[in-house]
Amino acid sequence: MTVLFYSTLDDPAEWLPRLRGLMPKEDFVVWPEIGDPRTVDVALLLMQPPGGLGAFTALRVVQSLGAGVNQLALDTMPPGVRVARLVDPGLTERMAEYCLLAILRYHRSFDVFERVQRAGAWAYRLPEPRSGYPIGIMGLGEIGGAVARRLAANQFTVRGWSRRPKQIADVACFTGEHGLPAFLRGLRALICVLPLTPATEGILSARLFEQLAPGAVLINVGRGLHLVEDDLLAALQSGQLTGATLDVFREEPLPANHPFWSHKLILMTPHVAGAGDPDTAAGLVVENIRRARAGAPLLHELDRERGY
Amino acid sequence: MTVLFYSTLDDPAEWLPRLRGLMPKEDFVVWPEIGDPRTVDVALLLMQPPGGLGAFTALRVVQSLGAGVNQLALDTMPPGVRVARLVDPGLTERMAEYCLLAILRYHRSFDVFERVQRAGAWAYRLPEPRSGYPIGIMGLGEIGGAVARRLAANQFTVRGWSRRPKQIADVACFTGEHGLPAFLRGLRALICVLPLTPATEGILSARLFEQLAPGAVLINVGRGLHLVEDDLLAALQSGQLTGATLDVFREEPLPANHPFWSHKLILMTPHVAGAGDPDTAAGLVVENIRRARAGAPLLHELDRERGY
Repeated sequence: MTVLFYSTLDDPAEWLPRLRGLMPKEDFVVWPEIGDPRTVDVALLLMQPPGGLGAFTALRVVQSLGAGVNQLALDTMPPGVRVARLVDPGLTERMAEYCLLAILRYHRSFDVFERVQRAGAWAYRLPEPRSGYPIGIMGLGEIGGAVARRLAANQFTVRGWSRRPKQIADVACFTGEHGLPAFLRGLRALICVLPLTPATEGILSARLFEQLAPGAVLINVGRGLHLVEDDLLAALQSGQLTGATLDVFREEPLPANHPFWSHKLILMTPHVAGAGDPDTAAGLVVENIRRARAGAPLLHELDRERGY
Repeated sequence: MTVLFYSTLDDPAEWLPRLRGLMPKEDFVVWPEIGDPRTVDVALLLMQPPGGLGAFTALRVVQSLGAGVNQLALDTMPPGVRVARLVDPGLTERMAEYCLLAILRYHRSFDVFERVQRAGAWAYRLPEPRSGYPIGIMGLGEIGGAVARRLAANQFTVRGWSRRPKQIADVACFTGEHGLPAFLRGLRALICVLPLTPATEGILSARLFEQLAPGAVLINVGRGLHLVEDDLLAALQSGQLTGATLDVFREEPLPANHPFWSHKLILMTPHVAGAGDPDTAAGLVVENIRRARAGAPLLHELDRERGY
């Protein structure tokens, strides 16, 4: 049996030597040089390859190469295939660091300094006390929890929100629809790390923004479909929001005529917040290949019903 | 006897209540409402007040309100006056955080993303491994040491340079003129936290920049006079440097026609990296007022000969 590798972002030249070093007897094939598709029983995928997975009749396990799995198009995947998320400590650390950077940039007013410099203005302003600068994290899974802990370790005032109850030291945790208003009330910065599901699509909307403190900022490292783009533009226009850092988009790269490109209050990054790191991820992937072969439960196996 | 407060940046409305709360019987006066200048024996100053200190004939101690003391113009200060630096844990923490933010901004390519977004370009790039990204700190006093430790705690590869030998965990320390080439060689980022003295004025020059890795970045939170401005512009032009974050300038605010304002590779911040925090600094100031009255050695007393 063989293991298929396919991604439009992850470089096989970085991944394959590490995978082969850990499993020297394994037969890895890289799309499109895949040989007989009927010999593939495990696939390492960022998304489904062109034409889908129908030809891979022996496929039993898909290991995601991204932290999210929505790009795998689970509803078109053969029903018997088990799917594992990539919960990579390197990716989690990168994501937490990205969020810390985005928050420090706002809290230390680098966004303002960047803008006023171009206008030739000298705008002296000191950082506000952290006690008056609550930050909220939506999504408290592996990554969201790490983001919350990292910000709390940097002495920020942190709240977290998740579907199921969580407890994180130094983080005020809120749960479910009924906990949302108290979570949002007066937040100066909101970070979205949610998985994309029917329940979370479009959650970053006018109804949510208006519950934050006036002048709040938004950081979206979840998925592009979490955000109602017109609502963001309106909130930036009205001043309800004063900045947004976006790493994910409905379409990537963003279409050339999109209004985000030239918006002074939006900083876009090209989906780099939590890129997988082959150095830290290869071990997890290899372990799941072994478990796939042994018919054992996968690490971070997806609940396909729930969607994460 | 009375204590004089004078600063063009620090707000007496923030400082005085804290000082009076700690020394309720003390007589604090705020420039220009100073009463009889001959009653002032201690002065809390960011710089000398207009007209200098000649009228303050009983002055014995000057407590700086900034971490640096060069703006106090020591050479024009009455010779018998003792001077104390402000070594404020709040200021030190703010400075270390500023440097972490500036480094993360470069290491995570936010500077590049900001620029390419305006050009309508999508430039996918992941952070480089930290092992290939050495960062150097010039100056390892109270603040420089904190900057070095903060970066090392964030898993960066850190070197430090100082006039006298220092030892800091997880930081490779270099000393003196003879240690400078090995310190500089191949640095991707250089942070200047030096005090301004005749020996350090103009140290950020072409001769230094050319010893860094090609494409390095500069962060100056020392003093404007450390930097040879034309050498910075030339190094950015040639590509030897690819970015500079400057918090201090020869003249502040920077004159309107200065080329830094519109330079795409320079981010200017208005001397906010290490602003004093009355919450954390008032206790130190009060202790030094007591020591001044008792004729005791001051905390962080300046060596006026050495200049720091």
